[in-house]
Amino acid sequence: MTEASWERRHVLSLADFTAAELETVVQTAVSFREVLSRRTRKVPALQGVVVTNLFFEPSTRTRSSFELAAKRLSAEVLNFAPGTSSLTKGETILDTAKTYLAMGTNLMVIRHQESGVPQAIAQEMDRLGSGVGVLNGGDGLHSHPSQALLDLFTLTLTLDPDNPSSTLLKGKKIAIVGDILHSRVARSNLWCLTACGAEVHLAAPPTLLPPGLAEAFITQSPLAIPRPIYQHSTLTPALAGADFVMTLRLQKERMTQHRLPSLREYHQHFGLTRDRLEICQPTVKVLHPGPVNRGVEISSDLMDDPVLSLISEQVTNGVAVRMALLYLLGVGKGE
Amino acid sequence: MTEASWERRHVLSLADFTAAELETVVQTAVSFREVLSRRTRKVPALQGVVVTNLFFEPSTRTRSSFELAAKRLSAEVLNFAPGTSSLTKGETILDTAKTYLAMGTNLMVIRHQESGVPQAIAQEMDRLGSGVGVLNGGDGLHSHPSQALLDLFTLTLTLDPDNPSSTLLKGKKIAIVGDILHSRVARSNLWCLTACGAEVHLAAPPTLLPPGLAEAFITQSPLAIPRPIYQHSTLTPALAGADFVMTLRLQKERMTQHRLPSLREYHQHFGLTRDRLEICQPTVKVLHPGPVNRGVEISSDLMDDPVLSLISEQVTNGVAVRMALLYLLGVGKGE
Amino acid sequence: MTEASWERRHVLSLADFTAAELETVVQTAVSFREVLSRRTRKVPALQGVVVTNLFFEPSTRTRSSFELAAKRLSAEVLNFAPGTSSLTKGETILDTAKTYLAMGTNLMVIRHQESGVPQAIAQEMDRLGSGVGVLNGGDGLHSHPSQALLDLFTLTLTLDPDNPSSTLLKGKKIAIVGDILHSRVARSNLWCLTACGAEVHLAAPPTLLPPGLAEAFITQSPLAIPRPIYQHSTLTPALAGADFVMTLRLQKERMTQHRLPSLREYHQHFGLTRDRLEICQPTVKVLHPGPVNRGVEISSDLMDDPVLSLISEQVTNGVAVRMALLYLLGVGKGE
Repeated sequence: MTEASWERRHVLSLADFTAAELETVVQTAVSFREVLSRRTRKVPALQGVVVTNLFFEPSTRTRSSFELAAKRLSAEVLNFAPGTSSLTKGETILDTAKTYLAMGTNLMVIRHQESGVPQAIAQEMDRLGSGVGVLNGGDGLHSHPSQALLDLFTLTLTLDPDNPSSTLLKGKKIAIVGDILHSRVARSNLWCLTACGAEVHLAAPPTLLPPGLAEAFITQSPLAIPRPIYQHSTLTPALAGADFVMTLRLQKERMTQHRLPSLREYHQHFGLTRDRLEICQPTVKVLHPGPVNRGVEISSDLMDDPVLSLISEQVTNGVAVRMALLYLLGVGKGE
Repeated sequence: MTEASWERRHVLSLADFTAAELETVVQTAVSFREVLSRRTRKVPALQGVVVTNLFFEPSTRTRSSFELAAKRLSAEVLNFAPGTSSLTKGETILDTAKTYLAMGTNLMVIRHQESGVPQAIAQEMDRLGSGVGVLNGGDGLHSHPSQALLDLFTLTLTLDPDNPSSTLLKGKKIAIVGDILHSRVARSNLWCLTACGAEVHLAAPPTLLPPGLAEAFITQSPLAIPRPIYQHSTLTPALAGADFVMTLRLQKERMTQHRLPSLREYHQHFGLTRDRLEICQPTVKVLHPGPVNRGVEISSDLMDDPVLSLISEQVTNGVAVRMALLYLLGVGKGE
Repeated sequence: MTEASWERRHVLSLADFTAAELETVVQTAVSFREVLSRRTRKVPALQGVVVTNLFFEPSTRTRSSFELAAKRLSAEVLNFAPGTSSLTKGETILDTAKTYLAMGTNLMVIRHQESGVPQAIAQEMDRLGSGVGVLNGGDGLHSHPSQALLDLFTLTLTLDPDNPSSTLLKGKKIAIVGDILHSRVARSNLWCLTACGAEVHLAAPPTLLPPGLAEAFITQSPLAIPRPIYQHSTLTPALAGADFVMTLRLQKERMTQHRLPSLREYHQHFGLTRDRLEICQPTVKVLHPGPVNRGVEISSDLMDDPVLSLISEQVTNGVAVRMALLYLLGVGKGE
């Protein structure tokens, strides 16, 4: 297990991740993916460590993935259920986090519908000198780093299954299609993919990708990494010659906000189909963070295509990547 | 542990279970019941195996029983909580199952309010060549095989605690009383008990047991096993000389559908009491799948009678039988 | 681990706890606190034991604390979730408990919004000769023994970190401030603190502390222990010279019952602040059972004061005390 170039206590956003750090995550995930393929699927790396899932915004999928990752590392897992929580009793979010700290939590995975909550908790944990590591499990429209990292890992494995490396992304054209405006997955992927040298093309209707969004994004860049990002209001220029196409989940509530005429029309213009992929590279693959609205973001047959679709691979790799993140933040905290 | 005559990958229904398969379940459960009585109540049989409880229809009792059974076998358990799920986000049930497959699930226990969901998921798992075993934890009005198998196991243990065997049921008269029409427990028990050679008598008001139901059931039989099933619209002919009486849970919502005049009247005609059992065999025992409406399906004192009632035994045996099923489907999948 | 003077099967209330029993809990918790500070934070003491959390009244905080305590002792944990339970199907609470007994539960932690439920379940468990130990996790307005015991443990650790003992409380003045009338925490603390020889001063507005409450409480005393309890309708006489100040959570729904003019006015008269503590002993410390309404029961800066506030310590000690209770009730039940 390489821990070269890893000094972070938290994983909150990928905006300031260096290429070396991304590579460390990929290589650590490679090791854990190998563990998962063995008959013994459990390692004692985090024995005695307590991982608390503080999911203020409910999510069975991401929570299960972190829970399984933690158990594979022999950690103890506590799940905080928002419905039955002290929050309804007036406690602040920081006080809830501090309560779990005081119980003996070593690592917290935080998901919240508002941007900035994981950051605020991480700051408080540091201020208290707690030594707790915070993992952002998705916050508002801001960031979803573990999703972007599992996407990265999936891309590298696809490019070279025997020697996956984030350096393989250099110069690749990657299209991100859909509701960019409301997607924390897209934001995290933008930082991650450009840090690895990929060229990113965004495509969506203007209501979901306002003119100037990409430029505004680039100017926030905290690291001096070139961020080649292009913005399109139709699908074709984004797909042309693309090595990979990532499509995003369309929240149906966007309809009620009058940002889209209809799901059907959205699919006609931005839904991925086998036909539409013909202008991509012959080796093109499709990704989706799930859960999928079949026939909206992606046609049902394309989603199930074992050659073109990487959707199941993404879920599998999610466990390995989350094992890597928990390990990198948690090693040395237990016995 | 005998695994003679076991080739199934899934347990979806008991309609095509042979007597030999039923006996394998009983004998495997005997072994696990012995484990549960030792001080060390855990065996490493399914170490590394991931059991996911996909309970789309909530059920604390059955879920806890499967969860404890899995933990006793040293498996990892993931619980899918419908309230906080991707389903509310538009994902299909098959896609939810495939997500848990991709995370590394080896065995799935599925409960759903609609008939056929576990079958559909099992088919998809096979089509994908996943190797995943599916256990039906109760689907609509169709089937509840683990309940019928724990009932079978309880009957055999009662008939001969030292040498329990499904062959002991041959020629026994078993009454099933109550809402046959809406009971997946009754359906599964019918297949199971008749396959073992028991004679089954059904008793219920005609609204809950339409004329011809038993005949219709028998004609569906996929195996050439005699299915002696008799149907009665009063309690007495079913109880007369019965070796065992199984009563079914009465869903209170049946009242609003005008199928019953009142719970009180139901109890007067079909509720089990000590007095009514006097026409049964002297060794008669009563079973109920729970949860019980005291004073409706069964009088409170009969329910608590340590000699006549097998209700607690059923719950205890449920853990052993579910260990047996998880073991038979899961052995060899872990380390 | 000392188990001198421990013969209880259940912990339901502290009303009849002797000083020797309280000291046994403190000393057992001392041992487990030492375990928690080691790198290996897990002991095999309750391997094979099943702990079921029956939380009819939801509580993430207390449930997580018991869950972690049980896991640190290597027990298996089942969580009963009221929302998805058989209770909604008409099953009685006792039948739910008996179902978990039949599954193999050895220890039950019961929380219920009505007083007396844990007692009723414990009686039933004894009547059945089950050997199951019942821990009251909080029942109605009656009792919350594990909270009072963790408060006791926290006080003794503060008085002498190297040699904590309940005898250190002898003659100490302890103020309990707030909604005494509706607090099961206050009731349990009254039994516990006076049994250790402390002098307790209650302070609250008369609507939350009716005249004569302390006298009425003392007359219920089942043990011949002096119970010096004083009652005040203003804060000053309770705080003057106090060694510790415990403030209680104010349920906001009390407002709608017209027991309080406003939260602001409550804070003005009974809220704890650094200034108000100046009339206490110079070594005074503040406790709160949580969750806290910041700026109501206690000012925000006092709550976060690392010298004056013991709130985080209480949470940490809660895990050690609950390990002690589970151990004392559960040892010998597993392998």
